Amino acid sequence: MNPYRPPLADIRFLLETFDYAGQIQPLPGCEDFDLDTAMDLVDGYASWCVDVLLPLNGKADHQGVRFVPETHEVVTPDGFKEAYAAFRENGYGSLPFPPEHGGLGAPSCLSILASEILIACNKSFSMSPGLTAGLIDALEAHGSHHLQESLLPKLVSGEWSGTMALTEPHCGTDLGLLTTRAEPHGDHYKLTGTKTWITFGEHDLTDNIVHLVLARLPDAPPGIRGISTFVVPKFLDGGVRNPVFCGGTDHKMGIHASPTCVMNFEGAEGWLVGEPHRGMVAMFTMMNAARLNVGIEGVALAEAATQAALAFAKDRRQGRSLDPSKQEKGAAADNILVHPDVRRMLLTAKSTTEGLRGLVAWIAMNYDIMNKSTDEAARAKASDLVALLTPIIKSYGSERGFLNVSEAMQVMGGAGYTADWPVEQFLRDVRIAMIYEGTNHVQALDLVGRKLPMGGGRLMQGFAAEITALIRSCADDARMAPFVGPLKAESKRLTETTMNLGAAAMQDNEVVGAAASSYLNQFALVTLAYIWVRQVKAVIDRPEDDLLRRGKLQTARFFFEHVLPEAELYARRVAAGKGATVEIDVDLL
Amino acid sequence: MNPYRPPLADIRFLLETFDYAGQIQPLPGCEDFDLDTAMDLVDGYASWCVDVLLPLNGKADHQGVRFVPETHEVVTPDGFKEAYAAFRENGYGSLPFPPEHGGLGAPSCLSILASEILIACNKSFSMSPGLTAGLIDALEAHGSHHLQESLLPKLVSGEWSGTMALTEPHCGTDLGLLTTRAEPHGDHYKLTGTKTWITFGEHDLTDNIVHLVLARLPDAPPGIRGISTFVVPKFLDGGVRNPVFCGGTDHKMGIHASPTCVMNFEGAEGWLVGEPHRGMVAMFTMMNAARLNVGIEGVALAEAATQAALAFAKDRRQGRSLDPSKQEKGAAADNILVHPDVRRMLLTAKSTTEGLRGLVAWIAMNYDIMNKSTDEAARAKASDLVALLTPIIKSYGSERGFLNVSEAMQVMGGAGYTADWPVEQFLRDVRIAMIYEGTNHVQALDLVGRKLPMGGGRLMQGFAAEITALIRSCADDARMAPFVGPLKAESKRLTETTMNLGAAAMQDNEVVGAAASSYLNQFALVTLAYIWVRQVKAVIDRPEDDLLRRGKLQTARFFFEHVLPEAELYARRVAAGKGATVEIDVDLL
Repeated sequence: MNPYRPPLADIRFLLETFDYAGQIQPLPGCEDFDLDTAMDLVDGYASWCVDVLLPLNGKADHQGVRFVPETHEVVTPDGFKEAYAAFRENGYGSLPFPPEHGGLGAPSCLSILASEILIACNKSFSMSPGLTAGLIDALEAHGSHHLQESLLPKLVSGEWSGTMALTEPHCGTDLGLLTTRAEPHGDHYKLTGTKTWITFGEHDLTDNIVHLVLARLPDAPPGIRGISTFVVPKFLDGGVRNPVFCGGTDHKMGIHASPTCVMNFEGAEGWLVGEPHRGMVAMFTMMNAARLNVGIEGVALAEAATQAALAFAKDRRQGRSLDPSKQEKGAAADNILVHPDVRRMLLTAKSTTEGLRGLVAWIAMNYDIMNKSTDEAARAKASDLVALLTPIIKSYGSERGFLNVSEAMQVMGGAGYTADWPVEQFLRDVRIAMIYEGTNHVQALDLVGRKLPMGGGRLMQGFAAEITALIRSCADDARMAPFVGPLKAESKRLTETTMNLGAAAMQDNEVVGAAASSYLNQFALVTLAYIWVRQVKAVIDRPEDDLLRRGKLQTARFFFEHVLPEAELYARRVAAGKGATVEIDVDLL
Repeated sequence: MNPYRPPLADIRFLLETFDYAGQIQPLPGCEDFDLDTAMDLVDGYASWCVDVLLPLNGKADHQGVRFVPETHEVVTPDGFKEAYAAFRENGYGSLPFPPEHGGLGAPSCLSILASEILIACNKSFSMSPGLTAGLIDALEAHGSHHLQESLLPKLVSGEWSGTMALTEPHCGTDLGLLTTRAEPHGDHYKLTGTKTWITFGEHDLTDNIVHLVLARLPDAPPGIRGISTFVVPKFLDGGVRNPVFCGGTDHKMGIHASPTCVMNFEGAEGWLVGEPHRGMVAMFTMMNAARLNVGIEGVALAEAATQAALAFAKDRRQGRSLDPSKQEKGAAADNILVHPDVRRMLLTAKSTTEGLRGLVAWIAMNYDIMNKSTDEAARAKASDLVALLTPIIKSYGSERGFLNVSEAMQVMGGAGYTADWPVEQFLRDVRIAMIYEGTNHVQALDLVGRKLPMGGGRLMQGFAAEITALIRSCADDARMAPFVGPLKAESKRLTETTMNLGAAAMQDNEVVGAAASSYLNQFALVTLAYIWVRQVKAVIDRPEDDLLRRGKLQTARFFFEHVLPEAELYARRVAAGKGATVEIDVDLL
């Protein structure tokens, strides 16, 4: 039983809250997408996902993918081929891409927000279009005209799919260690090496698969500065099979319908993307969008799990209200929604999921501004926010998503642990999001080690200015005080934590490593508080009995009273320094 | 790859710390089990688990159980039959039971602590002996002489197994709703109804299966006071098949090798255990031991997962130490144990797992004192501690266990998500522990609603006195101050929280429901702080370079600096009251 309904009303509310009409629609190319048109697009996409992909989800998880060693082929679950063909024909993979490459040219924020629905309906399926989109971004930004011409039309149309081939058996986080090599061969290269964890590295959904591969040229310096990026198609011109073969698929806790492949490059022909030895630049273009998407995985599966838990709770009667006046007369037991702890779990999941969705919406809109605005200052400001908050969305979105799916399971008791409901699959599927596209700690190091120092602290100062402006704009409104007060206190604490951590880091770099994960979580909670104040502000002038206002206010109240206090715990852990963590003898672990 | 090694040294250390020689060995029947003898017993048991059960674990998870609808039979995974036969022959199921019923008569604390190893090696397998032991306890406490005579020898020997048949499709937490009925039939009864979630309700490991069943007599009052307990064997005297049939097995996220059965009682013959309508008394005897065991599941799988993560980490090289002086010269990357965040995750898991194991050891020893001491005051005191802290072990042990297995997976990155390592199975297997034997919130309500008010707060006062005495005993030792100081502060805070919660509950009972889960976690953290101070005190006088001392001190330090601060967060949530949680419109969720 999967009662999932796409959160279209919340998506529309968020687009309005962050001023879609004023910020996005005026951008070059976006003029035709007014809010109604935009929501019609998302609505149609959502309906298709619910109709076609959702019913496949549980069965595909159960069936999994099948590797055929004799042919190196991978067979996807029943129904995936037909679903993919329909997805392609509907143009759902090409929404945000420029019309000159066959895309619809819609604002990116729409496809980013719509991807939540795709993931909620079928996370395994969602991974192939997600990677293809990343490859398109990388080729648009760094590919030669020739590569763009030959690859983009087929990738944008969805006839071909893309992969991201970074990891090798001995290196994932530390790509500087990779050993796949690229030897010159006429105007292009031959690649040799083994890549692991390649999502949809081999499958039967498209005519061709184009791998974006990190490898070393013969004259490459060691380490991360000696890596170049190549595209390696499975089939070359004229249908010649390029020697890049799947060597097997991994058996994983979840995402069973998404093939995770070992890929062997046996002198496979490839073409350089971007400059030699500058491969990480192209790869980061692909990865930043991917990281945003991984954070959305947490939002998507938490939303779907919470909806399932709520549907279960509405039906289930067990025990009696602790308040006799709330006990249902004539019934042997009350609905479990009377139990405060059931409400606590649902509100924990809902308040963080809606906060994170708001954060994703805001950053997704800044993503459009960063890429499309004609105002240089607006582009720079948007770019700073995207850079600063992407690691937070990836890390906190996936961690909180995992915890929220677990809360939803707890509401359901034993039922949630069985395959009669989709929540156990969601819990298995969501867990990988904390690991891939850079583990959550890698995100934390990116935040503390790269984003905070950037431009002398410019990114953080810019975000702090947004918070201050928001607080000021609410200063005269007593109704906002219960939300603005905690935001003010916790953003002040975050500023102190940031300064103290910066000072400590100058003395001892290991402090950064010891504190980064806790710091990211503290930062994330303050960011969600900011997003919640914006949401509350957007509804506060509605009539008091307005349902949207009442719903947002009760959810926000819970966030500020029960979730935001976690920020202080993380601050305390940061303040504890590195001693207890680092000054140990690992042989005694 | 499963590198698990039973934590025998820690078990011995804990038995010493809580004065096994002074407290347990003198108890009637325990005289022959001095510490060396006791540890030899645990050691042999542990070796057998590692040799026989551990290699079956992953394969059995993959294979699962098979239900045969035509015959209502359940086929367990390959190797389980042989393993069970050896387990029985070695007498491992009968360690703690009285010699007059064929048991070894060993102190219960030994079998309780040894069960961690059984679970770590094969949680699915462990569940059948665990339930049989619970049935034996219930029969010893409440069964008639005739029932004891006819059932106990076969159950203690392991020739027959036991189940606990409580839940029905429409009721689990709220057993007052159950409808299975028992009609008088000569000197016994015929039972009709459907039970769900019956662990090892049907299987092929033993000649007979004895169900402990909750049902209603014809004259039973409604609700929880109208429930009686019966034993219903699968086979009656002379091998006649009793009409109790498995109707199917559940498909679950984990514990795939443990059959979770729907059991249909179709006029099955059963015998009353204890008094009519007093069934919950017998059932609670069974459940209290079971709840202790569920907490141990969290300890067991967290320990095994942490060991796997540590083994992985010792082998894996990735990235460079942030402290240049710690970078390994000549290597392209450092061992990941140099990264503070890897240490943070391992220490989080280790410090809470070792704290919980200490708590289990202490309560397990009190379990023996409660049952066997000739000193009435000692029995009463031990009984209070067991009653107070069992819900904490069950709830916090399972919740923290789940989080700790997840931390271990995070250390391992993608490898932890694959079936190449056992951690993904541990994460699936451990999750159910938060749900069954009374959900974690049911434990919290038991703590706040039953255990705190009992005897006018006697249980809590008794435990507080233990804490105070411990703090006093360390007062003159400056070396203890970093541990005793935070224990003192947090136990003071817990006292305040308890008093405020008690006062609020008198005004409004719903406050209890809103606060209970947070309160239990606050309480659990203070309890672990108490246990850690006892562990530190036990090693503090050893030489400074003693490895046990150094290991315990570094782990304790991390607990006090990084884990214990969570207690304040929970206190704050309790203090927030019920408003944000309860005063909502559930239609807006």
